[in-house]
Amino acid sequence: MLIFSCKKEEIKTNLSDVSISNTSLERVEPTNWWVNFKDTSLQLLVKENNIGNSNPSISYDGVSIEKVHKAKSQNYLFIDLNIDATTKAGKFDIIFTFDDDTKKTHTYELKERQKPAEDYKGFDSSDAIYLITPDRFANADETNDINQNLKETTIDRTDGYKRHGGDLQGITNHIDYIAELGFTTIWPTPVLTNDMPNGSYHGYAITDYYQVDPRFGTLEDYKNLADKLREKDMKLIMDQVANHCGLEHWWMKDLPFEDWINNQKNYEDNIDTWENDKNIGSNHRRTTNQDLYAAASDRKGNNEGWFVSGMPDLNQRNPFMATYIIQNSIWWIETLGLGGIRQDTYPYPDKQFMANWAGAIMNEYPNFAIVGEEWSYNPLLVGYWQKGAKNKDGYESNLQSTMDFPMQKAIVEGIKEEETWGTGLVKLYEGLANDFHYTTPKDMMVFLDNHDERRVFTALNEDATNTKMGLSYMLMLPRIPQIYYGTEILMDDTANPGDHGLIRTDFPGGFKDDNINAFTGEGLSAEKREMQNFVSKVLNYRKESEAIHEGKTIHFAPFMGTYFLFRIKDDETVVHIINKNEEPITIDLKRYAEVGLEGKSLKNIISGDEFLWNEAIQLSEKGSLILTTKF
Amino acid sequence: MLIFSCKKEEIKTNLSDVSISNTSLERVEPTNWWVNFKDTSLQLLVKENNIGNSNPSISYDGVSIEKVHKAKSQNYLFIDLNIDATTKAGKFDIIFTFDDDTKKTHTYELKERQKPAEDYKGFDSSDAIYLITPDRFANADETNDINQNLKETTIDRTDGYKRHGGDLQGITNHIDYIAELGFTTIWPTPVLTNDMPNGSYHGYAITDYYQVDPRFGTLEDYKNLADKLREKDMKLIMDQVANHCGLEHWWMKDLPFEDWINNQKNYEDNIDTWENDKNIGSNHRRTTNQDLYAAASDRKGNNEGWFVSGMPDLNQRNPFMATYIIQNSIWWIETLGLGGIRQDTYPYPDKQFMANWAGAIMNEYPNFAIVGEEWSYNPLLVGYWQKGAKNKDGYESNLQSTMDFPMQKAIVEGIKEEETWGTGLVKLYEGLANDFHYTTPKDMMVFLDNHDERRVFTALNEDATNTKMGLSYMLMLPRIPQIYYGTEILMDDTANPGDHGLIRTDFPGGFKDDNINAFTGEGLSAEKREMQNFVSKVLNYRKESEAIHEGKTIHFAPFMGTYFLFRIKDDETVVHIINKNEEPITIDLKRYAEVGLEGKSLKNIISGDEFLWNEAIQLSEKGSLILTTKF
Repeated sequence: MLIFSCKKEEIKTNLSDVSISNTSLERVEPTNWWVNFKDTSLQLLVKENNIGNSNPSISYDGVSIEKVHKAKSQNYLFIDLNIDATTKAGKFDIIFTFDDDTKKTHTYELKERQKPAEDYKGFDSSDAIYLITPDRFANADETNDINQNLKETTIDRTDGYKRHGGDLQGITNHIDYIAELGFTTIWPTPVLTNDMPNGSYHGYAITDYYQVDPRFGTLEDYKNLADKLREKDMKLIMDQVANHCGLEHWWMKDLPFEDWINNQKNYEDNIDTWENDKNIGSNHRRTTNQDLYAAASDRKGNNEGWFVSGMPDLNQRNPFMATYIIQNSIWWIETLGLGGIRQDTYPYPDKQFMANWAGAIMNEYPNFAIVGEEWSYNPLLVGYWQKGAKNKDGYESNLQSTMDFPMQKAIVEGIKEEETWGTGLVKLYEGLANDFHYTTPKDMMVFLDNHDERRVFTALNEDATNTKMGLSYMLMLPRIPQIYYGTEILMDDTANPGDHGLIRTDFPGGFKDDNINAFTGEGLSAEKREMQNFVSKVLNYRKESEAIHEGKTIHFAPFMGTYFLFRIKDDETVVHIINKNEEPITIDLKRYAEVGLEGKSLKNIISGDEFLWNEAIQLSEKGSLILTTKF
Repeated sequence: MLIFSCKKEEIKTNLSDVSISNTSLERVEPTNWWVNFKDTSLQLLVKENNIGNSNPSISYDGVSIEKVHKAKSQNYLFIDLNIDATTKAGKFDIIFTFDDDTKKTHTYELKERQKPAEDYKGFDSSDAIYLITPDRFANADETNDINQNLKETTIDRTDGYKRHGGDLQGITNHIDYIAELGFTTIWPTPVLTNDMPNGSYHGYAITDYYQVDPRFGTLEDYKNLADKLREKDMKLIMDQVANHCGLEHWWMKDLPFEDWINNQKNYEDNIDTWENDKNIGSNHRRTTNQDLYAAASDRKGNNEGWFVSGMPDLNQRNPFMATYIIQNSIWWIETLGLGGIRQDTYPYPDKQFMANWAGAIMNEYPNFAIVGEEWSYNPLLVGYWQKGAKNKDGYESNLQSTMDFPMQKAIVEGIKEEETWGTGLVKLYEGLANDFHYTTPKDMMVFLDNHDERRVFTALNEDATNTKMGLSYMLMLPRIPQIYYGTEILMDDTANPGDHGLIRTDFPGGFKDDNINAFTGEGLSAEKREMQNFVSKVLNYRKESEAIHEGKTIHFAPFMGTYFLFRIKDDETVVHIINKNEEPITIDLKRYAEVGLEGKSLKNIISGDEFLWNEAIQLSEKGSLILTTKF
């Protein structure tokens, strides 16, 4: 890595000098900052023609330039500021003096923080998360569907890989629907600008880390969504991507350093043919992060290879890049008052950087929450990333929450499999038993599907009963549950399971002239309406249930095609029963005597029926049952 | 639990009293003991009609009776002795004085220990273990085949579940064969008396913990086997069973306490029909040992249920039973000079007892080795049992070695599966990557099959090349490898995969009039002889290879149907290559540059050919290759 730096210089600038004009520089990022962070340092990335040949100066009480770093490209300058704890919010000019004594200025703002750091409360096991693909949920503003300044200018709802027009205001307009379903938190997939020639709808190829994609709306729309959620005591999770950007990211045309991205030389040397260069892509050998025997070249191949050819791999070992990403995350938390971050492709970036990134955020926001995506069905790999894991290599991630892919697999397989010694409900039972391995299971995010995977209704053989069993079980676990939009109306991808376009089908009612409106129930089949009702009842019970949020868990080994799970806190006991028998069956309740429910009345939270827990329970048909002592 | 105890009484016995006769008591166990153990306590189980109504006394320098415990059955007495560090080896009488002043005596011997405790060196990763089912390996003495004093008096080599006549002397006679194959250790399945009406051949239903089954020979034969192995610097592992005994165990007719076995009341109340009693059997829910959410009743069902109806479950929470088992293990280590213990069904007995048991043994024999059987493909469960595991519940097993069922599954599946992103060699690669989870992977025992599982040749589609790939890979790992007898001649159970009788087929040449003799090679097919040769070459190389025993491991992600593993210590590098391509393929060796072999000569340990590690390697056919720099 090549870094030019020059020392802080004490040049007094005469602010009344008439030759200074407040020029609009190409970029100064972060675009603003705040006073009163724990970490008083701030590093500005300045991008402007020839700016590397200037000296910056600032005159503002409490703000000092600690160091100025030149980059390899003369069009960048990185300025280390210190913002003293006494600094007052306000604006000041940064004056750049060039060799020929010409000057440019940039007015920079330090804002007042809106609330104490402790009040940025992250999602936890009392929450339930609604995952949304914004392009496919609801189109509130058709005027922003096409933006001629961006590279992909078409909209085509018949093509699963084109933009469909959904936007932030579309989500905001339907917060009531989401809240009534019982969700407390929403996680939209990324909404920052993806100015890519195609496939820009999914949002994971970010081309500007400080801009909302105009086709999703404006920063004001994003803030408005956050505000409206906050008014309903709901949380907003931002989906962030530290591993890679989009190939059309603005900096790809003028990279500040030789090592701003990984495999940069390969890319620059083969800029016309690089898509065919097999040496640039990630080997996707994610186990190299943990494997003590992994070859160094394989580890490098995983961490430094590009995720896909359209996504340059950011080099977080470059300290300027590292700081850029950390500051960007903090900027969005502070700007939107976020309730959490979901970080994409967690095992791909440099893992020490990821630990530093999560650590820096948690240092500023001690009650915040971050969930990282390790898409592995191996509990060893997932567990490795959780804060407090006793890893042999000493790795400490600072990451509170991991995604529970192993449990997802166990539930989906176990629900649909035939009951034998090693298949069926035993997969749920033994999958959950693995919790003994995790530092804090209740901080893990559980789900049955997401934007990358087969719709659970499809995965469970298009069987609504199966889907209810899986969902209700998942919602009882000591976990943070996530449900993908449309699951409540049994959306499927059965026509081509796993097809991304199909998984991310438009939500009915979100788009003009939709025949069916799932928000109002208009045109929805009875089965789908019943599913909405089921999800709403379970989630709304869950929302108030301390037994589910933080109660003790007891479960019993599957027995005669049934599986009983209990969550207990104080006088609230919630019983979850899965019954796979098609024919009526009677289960002797003495088996569950140790839970101490004998003689108690329980209520079925779906049907409202009351049940006296005594000698036996009759289960009349296949399905799941949720009973509670608290009603 | 009901324990009657009475205090040590200082009764001086007049040894010259003529009314004392040296009676042969029914049982005093341990049958002898030794001086100079770290633990100076010894608890004798005395079984004799009405012995509970007697007072024992001893007059021998250094030996004192600390406490005498009556049992519920008056035919037992448990005597706590202390054997002072100054005690000399020798014999002494224990005099039992009955209420009517009649006396019985028993002469007890304290022996001198044969060697220092540190010299009981257990198996480790420098060893290779040959697992034998003694009834099926070689019949050296036909006079012991049938014993009319025992319940099963037939011998029938056409029936896989009857006795076939193999014996300890049969193993002893063929030590040279085993040694020449390159094994350093043998593990015969249990050889203690199984006086069961049927199925007695396998040895896991022990009816006398201090007696060699007469059909396998005598204690002298067992000692002779141990001695002969020792002469060749080989080790003997004893297969022990702490979880259960055989239903015909002598104590089952007169159980000392109400809680000597688990579910004892159920058993005694239903002694004629208990085989139909579903409440007595183990639920086999082994995850309850780890699962923090497991119901207490399920945990009890696993630990206290009977393994099968013919095997009463020992209650190790009864302190007399606990002491009995620990002392029995130590008795055998000391009597035979063992090189290790294999403990059956590890997750079934009381787990705190198992930790105490292993701890007591390792306390007396600091360099000993014990391997426990947790038959699970889940690394979390296997890892839990290994000494030093950082278990959330604080459990410390004191167990050095676990059986690596997860790696077995990975190898067998990976070798025969088609190569895709998630199948084939990647299973070996990712399976081994899981080593980051284990405390000390090299102390784990790896195998491709055993006496309970499909023969690996059958499991690998009766493909000798597959079998060589799997075996040679396994033999390169940082593990203690175990191979089941007959694998070297491609024995199979293809006719009925998994059938226990068939898995434990007679070894050809071990029995009179065998047409084929695998010991001499007579009548063996060329393919089988080649396999013997292959095993011998790999094991004999392995025997001297410090790189394999304790070297550094590096492996590379599978690539174009190949998988490269390196073991390195000082100037010895061993390269293991698996190639699944049927057609010739050339692999660029730059990929492996970090290993530093460029320009070095390596030798193929099977063919003897030399190879210069340079730009590329050509692999002409499917198979495995072992190259070494040390030759």
